[in-house]
Amino acid sequence: MDEFALIDLLLERLGEQKGGPAIVLGPGDDSALIDPVPGQWLVSSIDTLVADVHFPAAAGAELIGYRSMAVSVSDLAAMGADPLYCLIALTLPDGSPEWLDRFASGVAAAAFAFRCPVAGGNIARGPLSVSISVHGQVPANAALRRDHARPGHHVLVSGRLGAAAAALADPALARAQTLAEVTAVSEDPDAPLARYYLPTPRLELGRALRGIAAAAIDLSDGLVADLGHICRASGCGAEIAVERVPRSDHATLLQALSGGDDYELCVTVPSAALRRAHDIARAIGIALTDVGHIVARDGVVLQEHGRPWAGAGAAAGFRHFD
Amino acid sequence: MDEFALIDLLLERLGEQKGGPAIVLGPGDDSALIDPVPGQWLVSSIDTLVADVHFPAAAGAELIGYRSMAVSVSDLAAMGADPLYCLIALTLPDGSPEWLDRFASGVAAAAFAFRCPVAGGNIARGPLSVSISVHGQVPANAALRRDHARPGHHVLVSGRLGAAAAALADPALARAQTLAEVTAVSEDPDAPLARYYLPTPRLELGRALRGIAAAAIDLSDGLVADLGHICRASGCGAEIAVERVPRSDHATLLQALSGGDDYELCVTVPSAALRRAHDIARAIGIALTDVGHIVARDGVVLQEHGRPWAGAGAAAGFRHFD
Repeated sequence: MDEFALIDLLLERLGEQKGGPAIVLGPGDDSALIDPVPGQWLVSSIDTLVADVHFPAAAGAELIGYRSMAVSVSDLAAMGADPLYCLIALTLPDGSPEWLDRFASGVAAAAFAFRCPVAGGNIARGPLSVSISVHGQVPANAALRRDHARPGHHVLVSGRLGAAAAALADPALARAQTLAEVTAVSEDPDAPLARYYLPTPRLELGRALRGIAAAAIDLSDGLVADLGHICRASGCGAEIAVERVPRSDHATLLQALSGGDDYELCVTVPSAALRRAHDIARAIGIALTDVGHIVARDGVVLQEHGRPWAGAGAAAGFRHFD
Repeated sequence: MDEFALIDLLLERLGEQKGGPAIVLGPGDDSALIDPVPGQWLVSSIDTLVADVHFPAAAGAELIGYRSMAVSVSDLAAMGADPLYCLIALTLPDGSPEWLDRFASGVAAAAFAFRCPVAGGNIARGPLSVSISVHGQVPANAALRRDHARPGHHVLVSGRLGAAAAALADPALARAQTLAEVTAVSEDPDAPLARYYLPTPRLELGRALRGIAAAAIDLSDGLVADLGHICRASGCGAEIAVERVPRSDHATLLQALSGGDDYELCVTVPSAALRRAHDIARAIGIALTDVGHIVARDGVVLQEHGRPWAGAGAAAGFRHFD
């Protein structure tokens, strides 16, 4: 099949997920046309997922499609933004219609789940990779940014950490094929394969924390590394009480601290807003745990019951080019 | 160097080209923040360029950066849009700071030339490829679309075609390293290496043809294939007089008809607006040549002096998955 037949196939499978309230003109032209809502700022991010770097190449295309969307949309959650649309650039080594059909099916499921329709894209021959640019909106000046943390803020994380990192150690990771198979594994919301392939961008929480959280980031590289990004952007540091870090039953403490791929949120909240933050999380039904606080001195310090934690040296985050 | 050090290096080299009038928050957070202009629609597109598919892997990183930007921005020109910002996702096999520095230098030169600053991006380890999502603006309802061609419209193309295709046959293509070297080759605006690595998105022409041209596309896959996209989207066909197609001195007629990579515009214009279209092109200083017309019957038909052209069978466009 040629490029254009593959695009037609993908668009057919996307069904309703190629249009949305803001999309004036969806896939099929040189560009998509979007009618933004007055008074809102656009929130834009791009991510690339490379086969055998960010997902096993042998995994099911449906899972690859879903995970790629979830990982990308998570950057909108981290800004407190509502998704508007995305663009997908896919490179694949051959034009397998079956693979593409399953990929599109996973993308469509995620686009529906996150209300992030696909306004356009591109298919090219090349090593398997998926690049997605996601675009959302947030009221002017209401975005959650990395650079607004200040000494004294509490550091909170959503959910429980480490399950996605635990999945990386599971040989079943590369064998997983379908959404149905991964979701059927367990009723456990922290089932590692589901946390890895079907992460939940914390859109509702991010949106609800506008005006309450000061700084925010999504946990893609691990708590220590990502909190480090907040600290560097804000010109401060943080102290984490490792015994308070909410850990998945499937994960080691090290995985909870430095495993990436959970896509939970880490936010900093001034003391005066702490109670409101907890009330909101409770109303939404997401655990929000106080794991430490922002300090003036640079760096992320790990403590256990108030003393330097012996395992701190191992708890670095994921680095692409070490 | 790790991912974050490479990003810092890239951002430093981008200099002023990471901010613009619409960019509230540029690179460094989970997402960029953009303040769109009221009354304007957003115009969004994504492209991926893969090493040894869309450019020689051995070519200079500066040229790869510039070409990637130009190819992507051309999709905005084809809609009659003004660039606002772009996002760049780069995958590269190793973290060579020298390569990245030259790449960023080429990106910065193109971002400056096309007024399309870099609001964000991503670097990951993987086979060399560049994905760029570009975002522009156009007054509501003023965009040039593929689906507005109608029988009787004239088919016009800008510039001269085929030089980029001729470059693909030149062994010097993979040896080219710097912008300076490519631009120094010749005063000839159709010098093949320059047309391939440094194409000029026809932004000024696209913008000026709002309300005058009915349909438009940029020539990335070749005139015959790209005009075919307009015809399919509009539910019509076209007849092209091959003897009128403006051909680069460096190109064969077949290269002019079906070679991609020129990034000139192909537009359809109603007879009543034809003179205005030519006046505008003359004022801008770009040749705009009438090469045929839109007909009701499907398909792109190639004629020579009114008779079926014998070479028509060979004039198919570039297909990624043939």
